[in-house]
Amino acid sequence: MPETTRLQLAEAEDLLERVFGAAGLPPDAARSVARALVAAEAEGQVGHGFSRIADYVAQARSGKVNPAAQISIHERGPASLLIDADLGFAYPALEKALDVGLPRARDMGVCVMAIANSHHCGALSVQVEKIAAAGMIGLMVANTPKAIAPWGGRDPLFGTNPIAFATPRENGPPLVIDLSLSVVARGKVMNAKKSGGEIPLGWAFDKDGQPTTDPEAALDGSMQPIGEAKGTALALMVEVLAAAFTGSAFSRDAGSFFNAEGPAPRVGQTLIAIDPSADDGYLARVADLLNAIEGTPGARLPGARRLAAIQIARDEGICVPTLYVEQARELAGS
Amino acid sequence: MPETTRLQLAEAEDLLERVFGAAGLPPDAARSVARALVAAEAEGQVGHGFSRIADYVAQARSGKVNPAAQISIHERGPASLLIDADLGFAYPALEKALDVGLPRARDMGVCVMAIANSHHCGALSVQVEKIAAAGMIGLMVANTPKAIAPWGGRDPLFGTNPIAFATPRENGPPLVIDLSLSVVARGKVMNAKKSGGEIPLGWAFDKDGQPTTDPEAALDGSMQPIGEAKGTALALMVEVLAAAFTGSAFSRDAGSFFNAEGPAPRVGQTLIAIDPSADDGYLARVADLLNAIEGTPGARLPGARRLAAIQIARDEGICVPTLYVEQARELAGS
Repeated sequence: MPETTRLQLAEAEDLLERVFGAAGLPPDAARSVARALVAAEAEGQVGHGFSRIADYVAQARSGKVNPAAQISIHERGPASLLIDADLGFAYPALEKALDVGLPRARDMGVCVMAIANSHHCGALSVQVEKIAAAGMIGLMVANTPKAIAPWGGRDPLFGTNPIAFATPRENGPPLVIDLSLSVVARGKVMNAKKSGGEIPLGWAFDKDGQPTTDPEAALDGSMQPIGEAKGTALALMVEVLAAAFTGSAFSRDAGSFFNAEGPAPRVGQTLIAIDPSADDGYLARVADLLNAIEGTPGARLPGARRLAAIQIARDEGICVPTLYVEQARELAGS
Repeated sequence: MPETTRLQLAEAEDLLERVFGAAGLPPDAARSVARALVAAEAEGQVGHGFSRIADYVAQARSGKVNPAAQISIHERGPASLLIDADLGFAYPALEKALDVGLPRARDMGVCVMAIANSHHCGALSVQVEKIAAAGMIGLMVANTPKAIAPWGGRDPLFGTNPIAFATPRENGPPLVIDLSLSVVARGKVMNAKKSGGEIPLGWAFDKDGQPTTDPEAALDGSMQPIGEAKGTALALMVEVLAAAFTGSAFSRDAGSFFNAEGPAPRVGQTLIAIDPSADDGYLARVADLLNAIEGTPGARLPGARRLAAIQIARDEGICVPTLYVEQARELAGS
């Protein structure tokens, strides 16, 4: 048996749509979750792809995620929307937010979309790219279960709280930026623990707030933020925008994205779409800037690897650990 | 002669208003510049206060800054404004932006204000705090003359491109976050050069892109971004929002904020004001989060030192290097 199985993108989406249909989601929601997981897998964000299926299904079955979520949209202002995900998966709420919010942004010049009572939103790149594909500048922040302590403190209070950004680009795919505020992803520490190795100093702290090379101590402690106190200041900004502004749970109170027990994550996401099209010089200026970066020896544009991965996925399909594919087929009942 | 001179805030503002009036600015603009420099000095951001006076005046006299700037406001959409600073000082344009933009944000839920053809905007904290003082969430980005190279490259292409954020807080002053994307401010490297010392590894690179402890080599090279490639990705985001979106000069083309020669800086700033008042639980949630941080042993809220400095400045005045006060009095013709 090969370690990985190759799936074409449409085939992968069909499979996952059946998985989430079998888990009790209505067809639209099942399709939305399936598309988002496949899109993350296609761009190489495997931590937000097939690896999540088992936990997602278990959560839909245990009720930690509401499979029958009724998404509601509330107007806070002509250019400000609150989307209540009703403790369901994030992706259907994100889709509704963009469906309603992007035309607003075009009419108003900008629209802010606050998603409340939500769940793991996966690769933010997938969402902001949709804003850029519609010709607009996209910004997105999300809070996530606690992982980072306020600088100087020991106990985690913030998530790794990612920030994402995208802009359309003339004659090319959008520029997409997507980064979490920890120096490395927590998954890298988990991998080090599994393989029995150490982690470098500068990745994480133990539960006493001391730098550690022991992955187990790190998982009991907190992740190091980028830029020390600057990173926790940014994490606080994200926490206010994604949790306080949306009315969702703070990272310290959010239930885990993994396993099927405990309280719902109930995290939030905030997106801002800005229409630059009133100025017809915008796209040429962006092209000028991005060309300058691409012309810098040794440098590359953020997202360059991602674009290469997407191209391969479109041309040749995705190679997914066979374990996950078999798991998905079983969960789909096929 | 004492090294510093104590000035009350109103006295300092009056003095600087006369300085910029004598430099050819109309009264409103002179007052606006004076207030911003004094506010920065009062919060301890001395690099954005009295130390700038001589260069500002020299630039107004040489025409590098347009002392007679005619600020114009263009509506890009009901919630999107372009403010052309007409190559004058940034502060009068920032004031106009907030005067027109904040009522829009209240009506629309959000408003984006793009400031074009601008100049050094000083302490961003001063601007976003005004948004929070009006009951709204404030975001601001600015591009600045080149200092940071794309990660992996040698030549600086981005400024230190600061990001600022503020939110109102119940029963207390707004939370204000203001940070640049370099590990340390360039001024710290300049100080090390003056005092003949070395700088720690991790602050800067030489012109070949190698880490350096030599401040002179660092000033010829580039500043280290926070979070390595993550910091340059954020710097690129700021560059797109502050320069491309506003139609201003990119950091690599921006004239220096110091001295009176060369091209105008012509940088840009973008502000976003978001009204959270449609949800009457917002302020209580923010209080809950900020109280949790303040209750964390060893941690403190971003901006805590700033607030302490402002309180002292209000109660006792500011202590400014006497050299600058004498310079100001001479420039004011008094």
